[in-house]
Amino acid sequence: MGGNIMLPWIMIRKRKLREGGGSLATPPPCSYQVSKLVVQKFGAVTMSGELESLEQVLQGHIPGQEIKEVWRILYGKEPGILDLPDVAVNAASQGQFELKGFILEAATEQLRRPRIVRVGLIQNKIQTATTEPVVEQIYALHKRIATMVEAASTCGVNIVCFQEAWTMPFAFCTREKLPWTEFAESAENGITTKFCQELARKYNMVIISPILERDESHGDVLWNTAVVISNTGAVLGKSRKNHIPRIGDFNESSYYMEGNTGHKVFQTAFGKIAVNICYGRHHPLNWFMYSMNGAEIIFNPSATVGELSESLWPIEARNAAIANHCFTCAINRVGTEHFENEFTSGDGKKAHHDFGHFYGSSYVSAPDGSRTPGLSRVNDGLLVVELDLNLCRQTSDKWNFKMTGRYEMYAEELARVTKADFQPDIVRE
Amino acid sequence: MGGNIMLPWIMIRKRKLREGGGSLATPPPCSYQVSKLVVQKFGAVTMSGELESLEQVLQGHIPGQEIKEVWRILYGKEPGILDLPDVAVNAASQGQFELKGFILEAATEQLRRPRIVRVGLIQNKIQTATTEPVVEQIYALHKRIATMVEAASTCGVNIVCFQEAWTMPFAFCTREKLPWTEFAESAENGITTKFCQELARKYNMVIISPILERDESHGDVLWNTAVVISNTGAVLGKSRKNHIPRIGDFNESSYYMEGNTGHKVFQTAFGKIAVNICYGRHHPLNWFMYSMNGAEIIFNPSATVGELSESLWPIEARNAAIANHCFTCAINRVGTEHFENEFTSGDGKKAHHDFGHFYGSSYVSAPDGSRTPGLSRVNDGLLVVELDLNLCRQTSDKWNFKMTGRYEMYAEELARVTKADFQPDIVRE
Repeated sequence: MGGNIMLPWIMIRKRKLREGGGSLATPPPCSYQVSKLVVQKFGAVTMSGELESLEQVLQGHIPGQEIKEVWRILYGKEPGILDLPDVAVNAASQGQFELKGFILEAATEQLRRPRIVRVGLIQNKIQTATTEPVVEQIYALHKRIATMVEAASTCGVNIVCFQEAWTMPFAFCTREKLPWTEFAESAENGITTKFCQELARKYNMVIISPILERDESHGDVLWNTAVVISNTGAVLGKSRKNHIPRIGDFNESSYYMEGNTGHKVFQTAFGKIAVNICYGRHHPLNWFMYSMNGAEIIFNPSATVGELSESLWPIEARNAAIANHCFTCAINRVGTEHFENEFTSGDGKKAHHDFGHFYGSSYVSAPDGSRTPGLSRVNDGLLVVELDLNLCRQTSDKWNFKMTGRYEMYAEELARVTKADFQPDIVRE
Repeated sequence: MGGNIMLPWIMIRKRKLREGGGSLATPPPCSYQVSKLVVQKFGAVTMSGELESLEQVLQGHIPGQEIKEVWRILYGKEPGILDLPDVAVNAASQGQFELKGFILEAATEQLRRPRIVRVGLIQNKIQTATTEPVVEQIYALHKRIATMVEAASTCGVNIVCFQEAWTMPFAFCTREKLPWTEFAESAENGITTKFCQELARKYNMVIISPILERDESHGDVLWNTAVVISNTGAVLGKSRKNHIPRIGDFNESSYYMEGNTGHKVFQTAFGKIAVNICYGRHHPLNWFMYSMNGAEIIFNPSATVGELSESLWPIEARNAAIANHCFTCAINRVGTEHFENEFTSGDGKKAHHDFGHFYGSSYVSAPDGSRTPGLSRVNDGLLVVELDLNLCRQTSDKWNFKMTGRYEMYAEELARVTKADFQPDIVRE
């Protein structure tokens, strides 16, 4: 699949990577300091009409002592600031993307050394008009991501995750098949996987690459799939989206079905990770099963728009981190995507050409309930967060949610719920 | 049990209720209007050093257009303001408790009329020193609650819920048995249940009364139990706390065990309700099973303190409302309770005499992700919220979380998890 378009692009890309990448084989040492909470900001505001950042508003208006309390109540323990190297700051400035760095710390233990991992969350706009040839659209996104991953490598990122269906516009709102299904690729050897394998080897980085997958080996069907690529460059495996929305313009069930890869966890050189794609974040049992399979970090690559979900966005991934004693990384696409053919949205409104505003705001939550500020609501961005994975077990030993979970009781109750003759337990006078 | 203390108190109480209650048999009509969000505030600030209200800080500092966006992102769709009658406002002023009223609306349907219910959430301090005789402590709390429930009735409240273990200080931090276990009562015919039955009949109100229960019929053991009393005055049933904490000063597992009443839902005249007590809010499966049994409103009477949980408080009950397409009512105790004998907290700090600050902040979440502002962090309060229960099914039909829940898959996975030979599904290179 994709043989026709692979060659020219791979060649161009290889040349580009050779030109820019040589000096970064060894990332510069990144010193850091835990300091007063300051939201770092790089890159200009590129749109008006949308609030750029919730946290900027809070910090811009609420004075000293009160902001500390507001922050504590809203966001938990204040994260440290990760001092990022100049080369990354300059790359962000030049590349016009936001760059933020935070630290989520754990206590010191006697028997385990800190297990420090840096995760990178990338949110980005599509790079060309949706009317451009498919190959050009993919090419432009690969190019954009190559730049941002290079910056991530200079920040010492170990695991990077891109947004849902990152190689394409989120065109499922249109219900059209062509050209959108042409963006689908093999998870094992499509051009995007090969591209990511090269980045992974080059930067010694685990890469989570959520794509539209075409499974030629099983009837040529489509899936919404995250490909997990080891820092060695090997394809470690794939995790398919478990829950498919049928809401608003998320007509995804016309394109692909509920995933059949279960709740796999991937043992990487930097910790055990899992991928809960987009709509799966609304399902607490989905997060739970990834956690029970051992995930220390659950990534949630997403694509979601303002009016529908923005007030849910800060709640769900964070609740999952709390409930499951793990880290969660919520990544949302950013910007507004325009489509040539008008479409309706089942909401009584006139036909239109866009899905609404993808509000970005990617963030990381810790098991202790603390979270980082989000990336911008309007700009491309790279969020680098240094985690100490020891915090997972420390929080579990403190709060004991799994010890007190009574899963035998719920296994029985859940089995009853799924029976056709299930009768709710309702007490009447 | 309790025979010695029942008589004098019942007599005093009956006299008091006769004196004050006659004119309120028919609550005055409550007109309301959906207006610009204004946080209503009654009653003075009674403590310094603690932030009184998160929402007051936000609204006090962030200007017009920005606060609307901040509110939308943080709190979802703006609730309407419920106009409360003067008699209630005066009672709150005189009784020195905060009174707030909001409306969470649903769309109009063709085949169902709006199913309007008013819930009342009451948070309060203990009313006497913890060294006072047990009977005096209970008496003072009954008296306080009688005043607040009377105010609730003038606001047209149909279902009222009190905080966890409302008839006593939250003394489990001490690990002492006497006198604290003397606060335990029969759920079916203890003095507190009789008190609540009288209120229920008088005001035509469903009352959720979370108490320390002593079960004489089963070996005289203790439970943490919510008694649900119908608006007819009948004891509809009881719901025991399903998950018991072992964290910080919540030494509750020394006093009572995990509940054995399952996930009962109570069909009342005002909708189907359930009670998820305190620590159960950390367990998504607990909320889920109440919802699968049909609960439209899940009450979460709690007792929790600042440093430990305050950043989790706005997340968990709200996530449960979203994930389960129902309303949730989170109620926390307020104030700081002092105990005569010093105790330690397993945190390396010196012995001390209090549990920390119970931060109140009771609030209601709607299935669409919107929520009301919270009550004060420092004062007693009554939060009256008018709900249209039709919003539950409307949100379910829109978001489809139960339709897309794949419960058969999870029932199988959960059953596997509970087996001794369960092996996590981990992919290695």
